[in-house]
Amino acid sequence: MLSWFRRRRAKTPAPTITPRSETSAAVRVELAELTPPPEVFLGRLGYAQLVLFENLSRAVAAAPRTADKSSLSRAAAELLAGHQSVRELLEELGADPDEAMEPFQRDLDDFQRRTQGADWYEVLVTCYLTTGFLADFFAGLAGGLPDRYRDRALAAIQVSQGEELLVELLRAGIEGSPRLSSRLALWGRRLVGDTMLVARRALEIDGALPGEERTEPVFSELVGAHTRRMDALGLTA
Amino acid sequence: MLSWFRRRRAKTPAPTITPRSETSAAVRVELAELTPPPEVFLGRLGYAQLVLFENLSRAVAAAPRTADKSSLSRAAAELLAGHQSVRELLEELGADPDEAMEPFQRDLDDFQRRTQGADWYEVLVTCYLTTGFLADFFAGLAGGLPDRYRDRALAAIQVSQGEELLVELLRAGIEGSPRLSSRLALWGRRLVGDTMLVARRALEIDGALPGEERTEPVFSELVGAHTRRMDALGLTA
Repeated sequence: MLSWFRRRRAKTPAPTITPRSETSAAVRVELAELTPPPEVFLGRLGYAQLVLFENLSRAVAAAPRTADKSSLSRAAAELLAGHQSVRELLEELGADPDEAMEPFQRDLDDFQRRTQGADWYEVLVTCYLTTGFLADFFAGLAGGLPDRYRDRALAAIQVSQGEELLVELLRAGIEGSPRLSSRLALWGRRLVGDTMLVARRALEIDGALPGEERTEPVFSELVGAHTRRMDALGLTA
Repeated sequence: MLSWFRRRRAKTPAPTITPRSETSAAVRVELAELTPPPEVFLGRLGYAQLVLFENLSRAVAAAPRTADKSSLSRAAAELLAGHQSVRELLEELGADPDEAMEPFQRDLDDFQRRTQGADWYEVLVTCYLTTGFLADFFAGLAGGLPDRYRDRALAAIQVSQGEELLVELLRAGIEGSPRLSSRLALWGRRLVGDTMLVARRALEIDGALPGEERTEPVFSELVGAHTRRMDALGLTA
């Protein structure tokens, strides 16, 4: 650990948790215009949920206290219920859910491997930041789904049970530990890069983004929400 | 790997899967007479479910194919729903669920660590054998609960969604691979010892079993069911 990571940071007063719905209306409209065909959108979302579940279940396994383990397991159950809803939506579309998710396995498994974190606190940060970021992103894209799928897709994405607990556990660890704080700030910065890449891939058409003027405001909004999540932990983004 | 582990084994024709309810009526009666107070029983069961979930979520994470990952995640969701029911039963009893589970954390975490397995196949064997064994055992003990808890406790224990898939995945791997077959047979033999210890602990009163003549038939019945599960995989117990 380099010494400049250890410098003391001004204490941030505990801010309230950023609600997931904070993404601005303009960006929601923009994202809704970039929505891929429902089967592609839901296939990617369904596999992403499995990958986010993997991280959360690692947090369950690593939880040192019974109460936290049990509470985190409830958040994991909520994520799995969301995954199940997405499978059902795919079936309604006439798609095979497994086949629809398959094309996203390689990229998202890779994302999971790079973001899983080395210890309990890093796993918690991963769960908090990547789930938050991707929930914002997929919720924005869901706006462009046909009416009959939109609300159920949104409901499947909004998994909020674990968020408060994650923030609480992280704050308790970070408080009074500038070394942990700098390590996690660094980890958070790395996570946003990997998570942005997942979002970027989802917007690409034939391997290219559909114009910087359309995607730039989307990404800066998503990064803004990420920064607010980091703030909520008292970490500098 | 010693060479005698590699000797070919007579091919076992694929038997049907042992149903969990196969435990004999006499043993069910015996177990129902050994049931600890509801709060103790449910506290241990609730934590055991978290530990079994941990193993199953490792199987989800390690699954190489999208379809298996998603199916195993459904089994994980079922286990978590069972855990949630047990929490609710504890609350009805007027107990704090976390406090009720706490005393069993150390032993069961230790059990989890010793049984987690080193690779995909060992994890699958662990999930199949330990979940099956403990479901039989806890279901037997649940018979001694007060009427108003019994059926719901039994429903929380009976998680069967993943079993068939586990057997199918294991059979596919074992078939034509005597080396994997011997390694998993060895692993299964080790698992039964660790899992028996969990059952033994649950029957102890002040650190001792309540008489060999009462517990011996229970253990031999549980081991018999374990042997049938090994048979179902074509493995020698």
